[in-house]
Amino acid sequence: MSDFPTTPRNQVMRYPKRGAYDRETVYRILDEGLVCHVSFAIEGQPFLIPTIHARWGDQVLLHGLKGGRLLKHIEAGHSIAIAVTLLDGLVLARTVFNHSMNYRSVVLYGRGEVIEDPAQKLAALERLTEHICPGRWTDARYPTEKELMATTIVAVNIDEASAKIRQGPPGDAGDELEHPVWAGVLPLPIVPQNPITDPKQTEIFTVPAYVREYRRR
Amino acid sequence: MSDFPTTPRNQVMRYPKRGAYDRETVYRILDEGLVCHVSFAIEGQPFLIPTIHARWGDQVLLHGLKGGRLLKHIEAGHSIAIAVTLLDGLVLARTVFNHSMNYRSVVLYGRGEVIEDPAQKLAALERLTEHICPGRWTDARYPTEKELMATTIVAVNIDEASAKIRQGPPGDAGDELEHPVWAGVLPLPIVPQNPITDPKQTEIFTVPAYVREYRRR
Repeated sequence: MSDFPTTPRNQVMRYPKRGAYDRETVYRILDEGLVCHVSFAIEGQPFLIPTIHARWGDQVLLHGLKGGRLLKHIEAGHSIAIAVTLLDGLVLARTVFNHSMNYRSVVLYGRGEVIEDPAQKLAALERLTEHICPGRWTDARYPTEKELMATTIVAVNIDEASAKIRQGPPGDAGDELEHPVWAGVLPLPIVPQNPITDPKQTEIFTVPAYVREYRRR
Repeated sequence: MSDFPTTPRNQVMRYPKRGAYDRETVYRILDEGLVCHVSFAIEGQPFLIPTIHARWGDQVLLHGLKGGRLLKHIEAGHSIAIAVTLLDGLVLARTVFNHSMNYRSVVLYGRGEVIEDPAQKLAALERLTEHICPGRWTDARYPTEKELMATTIVAVNIDEASAKIRQGPPGDAGDELEHPVWAGVLPLPIVPQNPITDPKQTEIFTVPAYVREYRRR
């Protein structure tokens, strides 16, 4: 897979060694993330929306934006920015200055188009559902025609993207190592807990394996 | 504490019932979040940066932006947007359409100022460190004068803010409840794991209680 080009817009400026521009790294982070943040600007005013996404080949799907500012902005052909950030842990160094986080993040820039074709839209909705919870699509009730009409899905073409990754122990070196305190990493993963059955559920259904054994990585 | 005003900019448009504008709710979410996303616009181009933050009274601190685009933008007096999003779980409904997430998020708008006064800067750095890991400040080696010089901290005044919260079971109702499949919530909290001691640590130090018993809520 080809790398994304580096431009003044997507180049990692702070800690450039943490930057990565290959599609595999970028896509892996997009695929693991459950939440993204979408940024766009209208007349100099930045807007910011947390939402869900799914990578679909070389595109990123967004949904549920009907009638909103973001959708109008996308339909007008403007560029938006999307970020996905995965926190891995706290880096507790010996010096305040070397404290950090272990993380993997992606920021991408692109322009989107609303998916109008009903079959395409259904396929995109399947992809979004399966991104969040693989296995759920075939179990849940399919969207009705009315529900499909009420849903807007946008496919964003990735014009530029970069990943930024920090992993590993604290960066203390030299005489910093002499400061007498515990140092290391506190891993902070998302850990699925026991599923909570909907109290409206009167019949007893088995919790599906894809819920019981839910994993992101 | 007074509520934030609702304006066209911060009003929750999609699912307005999920919106909250009281300081207590907004501040609680800011205080729990370990990562924020900062958005700003330069000549119509949206930029998006994941970073750390800390609430400091009625302000939000950001740091480590020296010489970058964001800092210049803030120094020029422009408004930025900051989002903090806490994912609580997946809402697995009976219908594809009712699938959702449980989450708590804040989006705020404000203008920032660089903290120049060294004593103020040190206090702000303490607040940032203690936001991420309460107890760490007194254990770690204090910043040297050089380190303090190399650090930039910005205090952002919150002009507008809103929270958005979804909690609880799936919203299925009526004949949707008849679809025969397990439905409920899969909680997805961040769960601290065993600390990993820095391999460069040659002496044995006890893992501090604030690391062993680390909790965000």
